[in-house]
Amino acid sequence: MDFSDCRYDGSGTFTLSACPTSARIDKDKRESIEEATLENIARMADLQDKLYADAREGVIILFQAMDAAGKDSTIKKVMTGLNPQGVNVHNFRQPSSEELGHDYLWRAARHLPQRGFIGLFNRSYYEDVLVTRVHSLQNGYAMPDRCLGMDADSFYGLRLRQIRDFERHLWENGYRILKIMLNVSPDEQRRRFLERIDNPAKNWKFSSNDLAERELWPQYMQAYEQAISHTSTPESPWYVIPADQKWFARYLVSQAVVDVLEACDPQYPTISEEQRARLAECRIRLTQ
Amino acid sequence: MDFSDCRYDGSGTFTLSACPTSARIDKDKRESIEEATLENIARMADLQDKLYADAREGVIILFQAMDAAGKDSTIKKVMTGLNPQGVNVHNFRQPSSEELGHDYLWRAARHLPQRGFIGLFNRSYYEDVLVTRVHSLQNGYAMPDRCLGMDADSFYGLRLRQIRDFERHLWENGYRILKIMLNVSPDEQRRRFLERIDNPAKNWKFSSNDLAERELWPQYMQAYEQAISHTSTPESPWYVIPADQKWFARYLVSQAVVDVLEACDPQYPTISEEQRARLAECRIRLTQ
Repeated sequence: MDFSDCRYDGSGTFTLSACPTSARIDKDKRESIEEATLENIARMADLQDKLYADAREGVIILFQAMDAAGKDSTIKKVMTGLNPQGVNVHNFRQPSSEELGHDYLWRAARHLPQRGFIGLFNRSYYEDVLVTRVHSLQNGYAMPDRCLGMDADSFYGLRLRQIRDFERHLWENGYRILKIMLNVSPDEQRRRFLERIDNPAKNWKFSSNDLAERELWPQYMQAYEQAISHTSTPESPWYVIPADQKWFARYLVSQAVVDVLEACDPQYPTISEEQRARLAECRIRLTQ
Repeated sequence: MDFSDCRYDGSGTFTLSACPTSARIDKDKRESIEEATLENIARMADLQDKLYADAREGVIILFQAMDAAGKDSTIKKVMTGLNPQGVNVHNFRQPSSEELGHDYLWRAARHLPQRGFIGLFNRSYYEDVLVTRVHSLQNGYAMPDRCLGMDADSFYGLRLRQIRDFERHLWENGYRILKIMLNVSPDEQRRRFLERIDNPAKNWKFSSNDLAERELWPQYMQAYEQAISHTSTPESPWYVIPADQKWFARYLVSQAVVDVLEACDPQYPTISEEQRARLAECRIRLTQ
């Protein structure tokens, strides 16, 4: 299994329940897979250096997932080799009142990386068609009737179109977006929750509210399926990564990141003959 | 002449040269017009107070114009009656290197007002299809080929579509945008430039570069015509305001602002029976 098997670009029908949560890969291969991941991470660092120097293209990598699917640990393990000078991470927690006072894409727009940078979104504006939808939070919004006076399908249909427009605008202005859903199974989530409860060093990661969210699993899966199927395009595809084995999920994510960075084809800027002549002059002045 | 005569909503063909720069209004009427402007300003303050309390809708008022058309003085004279607590003004000067490193809508998106607020844009993202176009600045951008490898018409055609998408997104998320072009004549601009040169207190407003821009008048008019005709919609119309008489331009602008605020139909929030009962309790505790 390869990262490209997890790619959805909008062609064909997308069915989330048909996406594997487990890699079904021989455990013997773990060691060689982990080695390949490390190679990918080294390759990423090399490409990032060029991306930063080139500064023609920006890369946004966003992660969406159910709780305990491994967003934080994937970011930690896969992205740690990057030069922090060229990386911005933004964590989309519960929106502040200032954020709720704006259009829902505002906080994402504010945190877009400069071209040459990699922007990591831990959760993203997709929360506004996921948790918002599952909890019908639109009913609590302060907006005029023209924005709210419609059924939930129309309301979120509009949002998904707005998101497509937003992502197209970014593509047309020098950005690539890598959209990753870490697809964990309910069984594996239970196992990880139990570990968070039993291991005192992990207690802080667990809240009893996580169980309430877990009970809404089918509603979340439906919202994810709609979001992914309506916003997958050849330019901004989704990757639905089987996440039950963290070591394999990291491998696939590292592959997808290398792939998007390679697609940018970043180059160290070259200089003109004139600039080269000036460099030669500088060399002389430094050595006289 | 009324502000609604200056309104373009995308129906019919828009021809900038057919838009008057002068009000052709009897000078005797100046006093009564100025009185009407003051009444509009008072009405604006009243509506703004409700808009702020209501906070369901945000209003963006953007000004575009050639130099010396009166953007700053219009903002000063027409907006001074507003409560600054509910107003953000953003001046779109030459973009910083951080701004140039992002997509061109980024700096506008960052400065969007909260719902309940009025955002004044002194110049705006339209600069990116006006000055940028007239000076072919796109040729200096650091962006990948897919974003630049096309002729200027296609490049700015894309931008105008991106702007329409952006403004539609705002409309659908509780914003109204009032787009004002102060339409000054070249003759009146010359008169005002001469005044800036002759009056020492106004010298700081003039730069010799202003003359170079003045020589590009036809190119600017063409860029304005394209921008206005491609981004005027019933939801986000343009107002091309004759600006040769400042006192009349201010009147028309004040009318247009009152109109957009009235369209928001802001209301002081009402409270429920339960909240009212709680207020009554509080009253008792305060007077015991």
